[in-house]
Amino acid sequence: MQRKINFNAGPSELPPEVLHEASKAVRKYNNTGLSILELPHRSKDFLDIIEESKGLIRELCGIGAEYEVLWLHGGGRMQFCMIPMNFLPEGGTAGYIDSGHWANEALVYATSYGNAVALASSKDDNYSHLPVWPATQPKGLAYVHFTTNNTIAGTQWHTIPKSKAPLIADMSSDIFSQKHDYSKYSMFYAAAQKNLGVAGVGLAVIHKDMLKHVAREMPPMLSYKAQVKEDSILNTSNVFGVYVSLLMLRWIKERGIDTIEAENKQKAKLLYDAIDSSSVFTAHVKEKAHRSLMNVCFTANTPELEKLFLALCEDRDITGIKGHRSVGGFRASIYNAVPLESVERLVELMTGFKG
Amino acid sequence: MQRKINFNAGPSELPPEVLHEASKAVRKYNNTGLSILELPHRSKDFLDIIEESKGLIRELCGIGAEYEVLWLHGGGRMQFCMIPMNFLPEGGTAGYIDSGHWANEALVYATSYGNAVALASSKDDNYSHLPVWPATQPKGLAYVHFTTNNTIAGTQWHTIPKSKAPLIADMSSDIFSQKHDYSKYSMFYAAAQKNLGVAGVGLAVIHKDMLKHVAREMPPMLSYKAQVKEDSILNTSNVFGVYVSLLMLRWIKERGIDTIEAENKQKAKLLYDAIDSSSVFTAHVKEKAHRSLMNVCFTANTPELEKLFLALCEDRDITGIKGHRSVGGFRASIYNAVPLESVERLVELMTGFKG
Repeated sequence: MQRKINFNAGPSELPPEVLHEASKAVRKYNNTGLSILELPHRSKDFLDIIEESKGLIRELCGIGAEYEVLWLHGGGRMQFCMIPMNFLPEGGTAGYIDSGHWANEALVYATSYGNAVALASSKDDNYSHLPVWPATQPKGLAYVHFTTNNTIAGTQWHTIPKSKAPLIADMSSDIFSQKHDYSKYSMFYAAAQKNLGVAGVGLAVIHKDMLKHVAREMPPMLSYKAQVKEDSILNTSNVFGVYVSLLMLRWIKERGIDTIEAENKQKAKLLYDAIDSSSVFTAHVKEKAHRSLMNVCFTANTPELEKLFLALCEDRDITGIKGHRSVGGFRASIYNAVPLESVERLVELMTGFKG
Repeated sequence: MQRKINFNAGPSELPPEVLHEASKAVRKYNNTGLSILELPHRSKDFLDIIEESKGLIRELCGIGAEYEVLWLHGGGRMQFCMIPMNFLPEGGTAGYIDSGHWANEALVYATSYGNAVALASSKDDNYSHLPVWPATQPKGLAYVHFTTNNTIAGTQWHTIPKSKAPLIADMSSDIFSQKHDYSKYSMFYAAAQKNLGVAGVGLAVIHKDMLKHVAREMPPMLSYKAQVKEDSILNTSNVFGVYVSLLMLRWIKERGIDTIEAENKQKAKLLYDAIDSSSVFTAHVKEKAHRSLMNVCFTANTPELEKLFLALCEDRDITGIKGHRSVGGFRASIYNAVPLESVERLVELMTGFKG
C-alpha cells in the first residue's frame, strides 16, 4: 500500500528520509556491529547522539550553556507531573493559562502538589479563542505555565506574552515550526511525537536559574536537578527515541527554520483560505490572529456532510483528519513533516466537495 | 561489519528475526500506509498490539483476569517511584530485600514516600551472595519488594520466598527466562530492555486486589489505577517500544518457555563450568545455589590479566563483557536472545587464555 496522506495530531507524519535512516539503524547502527535497539545507553556512540542533539537544540533555539537540555521518558504528561513536583513548593502558587484541553490538564496535574490557579481561561468558549493574557499577575507566583499551540482547538500564541514570574512553555505541538525567541522562557518542553520524533520521549530545556531551588524531596528519576547531573542517562534512556529526535533535528537544520516557517505559513494559508471561502466548511477558530499554523480545525454544515466528507477522505487515502471528540468536525495537523502536496490534495477535495 | 557477539547487560541483544520485523515496520507497518513510528496510539492497529501483548503475557505467565497488565513509560526506575507512590501511604512501612544495587536503589527511592526498611541485606559482602530471607516479618507491612535476579552482582532467587505481606517482584532481568510461578506475586514488573524488548518501556502486572486502595493523591499519569482505567493509553504510549515487546513475546511463545529455560541453563552451565575449572578466572558468586542464569560475573587473577582478556575479547568482536564498576572483572549477560554459540565462542577464548 502507498503511504497515506497523514494529518494525524500525534504520533504524526515523519519525513521519509528520517524513516529510512531509522529503519536502517534498527538493522545495524553505523559500524557498531549492533542494532540501534541494542546500543548501550552509556556507550560512546550514544553519548555522541546526546551531545549532537543537545548542540543542535542550542543552535536551533539560539540559546547557550545557561540552559540545560534533557531527554526524558514519557512525553508531555510526565512534564505536567515533574514541573510542579520540582518547582511548586507545598503552599506555593503557580499560574496557568487555561487556553486548551492540554493547558487545563497541566493545571489539574499541578493541583496535586500546590495551588495552581488559572490566570486566564477560554474554557467557556470550548477554547475556540485564546484568552486575554492577564495584564497583572498575583505576586510571588512560582511560575507561569502556558501552551504555545493548542492542538485540540487549533489556537496558537503568535507572540510571546510577558510574565514577571518565570515563564514555562509547553511547545509540544509547535517547537521548531517557526522562528521563536526561546530565551524568553525559564523552561520550555515538548513531547517528541509531533514535530520532533516518536512517542515515549520528551525534551525539556531548563534555565540554570530554575535549578537552584528544589520544591520538595523526590526520587532522582523525577528530579530535573538529578537528571541534569547525569546528563539524561540517569536511567536507561529511550535510546531509539532520542536517536529519531536527532534525525529530526538534523532534518530541521538542513531545511532551515526560515524555510520551514515559510512552508508552514503557506500550508496553513492554503487551508484556511479554502475553509473561509467555502460554503460547506467553517473554521472552528473565528479570530484569525488566534489561528494555529499547526492544527487547522473546521466543521461542515451538517453531521451528514461531515460523514460524507470523512468517507471521501478515507477513500482517497487521507488519514487522521477526524476532529477531536471535544470539538467535532475535522482537524488537519500540518506539522513540519507534512508536505505541501498533502495540503493541496486535501484542499482539492474540499473545493470539489458539495455533499 | 558483522554483528558483534553481544553480552551487554541492557540494552542487550535482540533476536535477528525481531530486528528484521521491527526494521520493516519502521518503513511500513502492515497495510496501514504508515510507519509504526507514525501509528496513532488510539488506532485499532495499536489497540490490537496492546490486546495481543496482554493476552500473550497472561498466557506465558499462567495468570488470568485477576491481574491487570500495563505498558508504562520509563523502565524500572519509574516503577521504583510509582510503587511506593501508589502502595506506601505516608506513615506506612514497606519491606525491601536488599540483595543488590538495584534492589537497594528501589529501597532508597521509596524513602521519599514512607518508611522503607531492609528486611535482609547482603550489602556488606558487596551483594556477592543472596541474603537470608527473613523467617518473620514486621506486622502491617504495605508490601515486600524483592529483585528476582540481581543484574550487577549476578545472583538470582531460584525459588520464590514466602511473604505474608503482598509480594512485589522486580523481574527486569529474568522475566520469561524460565518456568516461574507468577501467581505468587501481588505485582511483578520489568524494564523491557533485557529480556523483553527495548529501552523506554516498562511492563507492570498488578493483582486487582492491590488497586483497591490508593496511598495518596497523585496525577493520573503516575497512578496505576488511572493507567488501568485507560488501558495503557492514558497518554501517548511508546507505540514502537510496545510493538517490539510484542515481537519478543511472539518469539518467546514460538520457542516455548521450556526450550528457553533448557537453553539458558545450558549456556550458564557451560560458562560457570569454564570459570570453575579455570586457573585464571574466578566466579564472583561462590555459592552455587545463588548464581544467576542471566548474568555471569567473574574476575581474572590480576588486573593485568583482565586488561589482556578484555583486549582479546574486543579483538574477537565480543562486546559488553566488562563487569560493572562496583564489581570489576567481567560480566556476561546471557539473556534469552543470546545464542548458545556466543557463549561457546567466549568459553573457547577463556579456555585458551593463559595471559
